[in-house]
Amino acid sequence: MSWLKKKRILLDYAGGKENPSGIHKEGVLARKKLEDARAKVARVLGTQKKDIIFTSGGTESDNLAILGVFEATRTLGVHKPHIIISDNEHPAVLESAKEAERRGAELSILPVEKIIENIKDNTVLISIIYGNNETGSINPVPKLARLIKDIRRKKESKYPFFHTDASASYEYLEVNINKILADLVTVGEVLVVRPNVEIRPLLMGGGQERGLRSGTENIPSIISFAYELELIEFERVKESERLTKLKEIFLTKLKESIPQAIINTPKESLPNIVSVTIPGALHEFLAIKLDERGVAVSTGSSCDSRKNIDTRPTERGQSFGREEALRFSFGKNTKKTDVSDVVRILKEEML
Amino acid sequence: MSWLKKKRILLDYAGGKENPSGIHKEGVLARKKLEDARAKVARVLGTQKKDIIFTSGGTESDNLAILGVFEATRTLGVHKPHIIISDNEHPAVLESAKEAERRGAELSILPVEKIIENIKDNTVLISIIYGNNETGSINPVPKLARLIKDIRRKKESKYPFFHTDASASYEYLEVNINKILADLVTVGEVLVVRPNVEIRPLLMGGGQERGLRSGTENIPSIISFAYELELIEFERVKESERLTKLKEIFLTKLKESIPQAIINTPKESLPNIVSVTIPGALHEFLAIKLDERGVAVSTGSSCDSRKNIDTRPTERGQSFGREEALRFSFGKNTKKTDVSDVVRILKEEML
Repeated sequence: MSWLKKKRILLDYAGGKENPSGIHKEGVLARKKLEDARAKVARVLGTQKKDIIFTSGGTESDNLAILGVFEATRTLGVHKPHIIISDNEHPAVLESAKEAERRGAELSILPVEKIIENIKDNTVLISIIYGNNETGSINPVPKLARLIKDIRRKKESKYPFFHTDASASYEYLEVNINKILADLVTVGEVLVVRPNVEIRPLLMGGGQERGLRSGTENIPSIISFAYELELIEFERVKESERLTKLKEIFLTKLKESIPQAIINTPKESLPNIVSVTIPGALHEFLAIKLDERGVAVSTGSSCDSRKNIDTRPTERGQSFGREEALRFSFGKNTKKTDVSDVVRILKEEML
Repeated sequence: MSWLKKKRILLDYAGGKENPSGIHKEGVLARKKLEDARAKVARVLGTQKKDIIFTSGGTESDNLAILGVFEATRTLGVHKPHIIISDNEHPAVLESAKEAERRGAELSILPVEKIIENIKDNTVLISIIYGNNETGSINPVPKLARLIKDIRRKKESKYPFFHTDASASYEYLEVNINKILADLVTVGEVLVVRPNVEIRPLLMGGGQERGLRSGTENIPSIISFAYELELIEFERVKESERLTKLKEIFLTKLKESIPQAIINTPKESLPNIVSVTIPGALHEFLAIKLDERGVAVSTGSSCDSRKNIDTRPTERGQSFGREEALRFSFGKNTKKTDVSDVVRILKEEML
């Protein structure tokens, strides 16, 4: 292919950089990069390439799942489609479910353990977060998926579809479709859409991503996501074990130094998150003081949507808002000395 | 501020990289970068920072404008809201307008010159592309904006709002809100939303971008967009003149060498686009042959939505689809020798 080496005259500037829709060599190469990335992502998630929809991020993936399924039911003429979400969803799920309600859906927001018993004939979608981004609590998604599939089989209906947001958890929990069995899965800038799902796009236009997500694909971002996902798969077990140990050290030291601290994170939880409430403290003020001492933490992320923490009912009964907890979340550069330093600094700042 | 120099312990991994919502130093810095970029963009576009909404790209900006205004009218209880778009819009506008129709809007798709006379009492939105990405034709957006404002004044109504997609043109036409006077302007990954506009978000969640576009802001992408926009402003006049000269050379050589070629691009057009139809030729086949000779062009971009070209009615009457034209689009690396080489190669491939 001698033309590969020749000087190229690019007269498709209006097509943009790395546009995989181009008919020319540059477009073919962009298309190849895109499809290679899609194949990697599909392999890690245990699904087919055609099930992978690239979006701009977790918020868009969640919105596409919730509003896309809702809009499809309207096209199909489902009367008053019913959506159930758990009461500890990310705001992207919560707010798009409320938007579906505004557009005519019936919405139930329920504790995870009440969801299955509240499925009705008109329930079209259930959304339950896999690992919570605030408290780190893990929901029994594979088990719930099986129960939902049983109900569908009994009803002889394609509904309800089951969506899970795995954005906060895919680094530490295996997100393999054959294991978690959901119909729609948010994994950051990927939405997995299984072939049985009827869904409308959220962004309309050039018809990219099988018509489910128009807009020129962001090739550099997609390549980097696919690369990270492969890396995560490779290191998941080891890194989860390492962080779990750090979490245990952190919790032990915390209980020793600040015995009044309430741990909002349940035992069964993501290895990287600890949510702590200190009775009587102003948590936002505490976070600012920690920051001044060189420690970056969050006070319930900007994404917190919990109305209550019901994972440890014995320790705390009342509900509380987003400023009333400190969230410590670990990552690949977190060291043992970091977690002990932080407990020491926190204690000093409380005196 | 001694803490600036100290070693930092980052325990907000779950907040993500460069998350401007963080309460800590890292979050403050990300917020500063975001607001600096927003200020740059606002300055170039002649508007206020609060009017700038960052999205994932032109497709999302167009969808937000069309569907966001439509959904807001439903909240306000407008009966059968009417939307008018021109018949040469980008598919992101065309398809989102069709989606609004599916959700209950009345939709008119009209030649630009018929739009003003077809405004009705229930018209809530008009969308007209500034410079067309296929033919390069320029619509008289400032004049149309003034006419629409006059109609609003006479009706004593806030409606219709006026949206223009300037994504294909902002590199070459000045997109200053005080000049083009539109209420909503798409400039790639920015949607300008003027304070008079009532609009609902497309993506729901954490409430970023004044609640109009949830999802953690993509700081690196936003910074690079703001930088490019400033550079474009600086070079716009000179670069437009340079490309206009190249376009004239290209057209002169094309008419000499291939006299039967029909130029779809009108005289009043963007300096970087020439659309050419060669009667009897298979344009896609021709594009592939050009590619083999080292020349990358497009056959009507993947974004083409024109149903007909009515800019040069004397030269051609019949309508034609997307495969029936070659689009040559120039950019900053295009040289004089490139455009003459291309005409020569095109002629050789036609023999």
